Amino acid sequence: MPQLLRVQNFGVSQDGIGAGENQTFERPFGETVEPWELMSWAGATASWPNRTDPGGSRGLDDYFTRDFAHNIGAEIMGRNKFGHQRGPWMDHEWQGWWGDEPPFRTPVFVLTHHLRPSFTLGETTFHFLDATPAEAAEKAKAAADGRDVRIGGGVSTVREFLDADLIDTLHVSVAPVTYGKGLRLWDSPADLEDRFEHEVIPSPSGVTHHLFWRK
Amino acid sequence: MPQLLRVQNFGVSQDGIGAGENQTFERPFGETVEPWELMSWAGATASWPNRTDPGGSRGLDDYFTRDFAHNIGAEIMGRNKFGHQRGPWMDHEWQGWWGDEPPFRTPVFVLTHHLRPSFTLGETTFHFLDATPAEAAEKAKAAADGRDVRIGGGVSTVREFLDADLIDTLHVSVAPVTYGKGLRLWDSPADLEDRFEHEVIPSPSGVTHHLFWRK
Repeated sequence: MPQLLRVQNFGVSQDGIGAGENQTFERPFGETVEPWELMSWAGATASWPNRTDPGGSRGLDDYFTRDFAHNIGAEIMGRNKFGHQRGPWMDHEWQGWWGDEPPFRTPVFVLTHHLRPSFTLGETTFHFLDATPAEAAEKAKAAADGRDVRIGGGVSTVREFLDADLIDTLHVSVAPVTYGKGLRLWDSPADLEDRFEHEVIPSPSGVTHHLFWRK
Repeated sequence: MPQLLRVQNFGVSQDGIGAGENQTFERPFGETVEPWELMSWAGATASWPNRTDPGGSRGLDDYFTRDFAHNIGAEIMGRNKFGHQRGPWMDHEWQGWWGDEPPFRTPVFVLTHHLRPSFTLGETTFHFLDATPAEAAEKAKAAADGRDVRIGGGVSTVREFLDADLIDTLHVSVAPVTYGKGLRLWDSPADLEDRFEHEVIPSPSGVTHHLFWRK
């Protein structure tokens, strides 16, 4: 089986925006953008890892939620997904948004020009890498133990890997909301159709799932 | 996490027929019914376990195909899914349709009034059980090591477990074909809506996925 680079459960608005500008500790998704509006479809499912009650839907959206970790052996993320700090690290004590048991449970490679030592939280080990997308892909594949690599975002990181033609499959959920400004994944999903097969699957929840795989 | 009883990737025609009458060694799905017509949507995907070429689609249908084994720890099947013989076993040498490496890779419990010794093929062990659906469910859950139990079919077995109200989730693919006669899962999928939430998801491949989960 070939090892794939996969974007999974990446949420954007109708106008293609996945995060706002001016991200801070208080607003990790920046101005304007409410992450809950983009991802509530996943939060409503039985497989959502942060559920505190036993309910949740088990329809179409649950398939996407429970596939998040399926055959994934490593993740690559941009520095801005890891944390709110910019420039040289001022605070090594702060170890990301996810508490003591981050939901990745694999090696995670954080792309940054400012290196810092690897550390482990729960079942996740974070490594910091100053590398091109192709170099990072190679390192993550080697760490993934034969399984696939998830490109975790944010928007700029997904775009860099698309520009380098390194993405094999891409699942983007488009929520019924429009932001007007922010960080844009695409002008239109049709932008990717020169290189990818593209299916558009409306969910009963109101979100639309866009599925792409390499032609 | 509760252990669920799940029907996965069960294929029927527009008129609810999953197998024909008079099943034989040569025609395991009986008269009239062509299994390929019911399941070609899965065979076209990248995750189909019997692929011999590296291609295959990675859209919606692939999510269902690759979810087949996800968190499944045991299967229960009817005797007619295991084999073509009826009545007392005349031939213990014949060990099912699946060759040396059956695709289940868990304990499988075959419901039959005619017991025979358990045996292992590859990563699958077949046990033979003369039991009610509730008793079989209990045994399979105990063998599933905390994971879910798949109710593998055929039609009569799925119906028995539905009648006993033991199914938690049900995924049925409805193919664009009509048979007129045979073994019928339902008169209409709406029959189940008194007990189950129900989503209808048309796939670009032409099949329609029906997803049910307990209310």
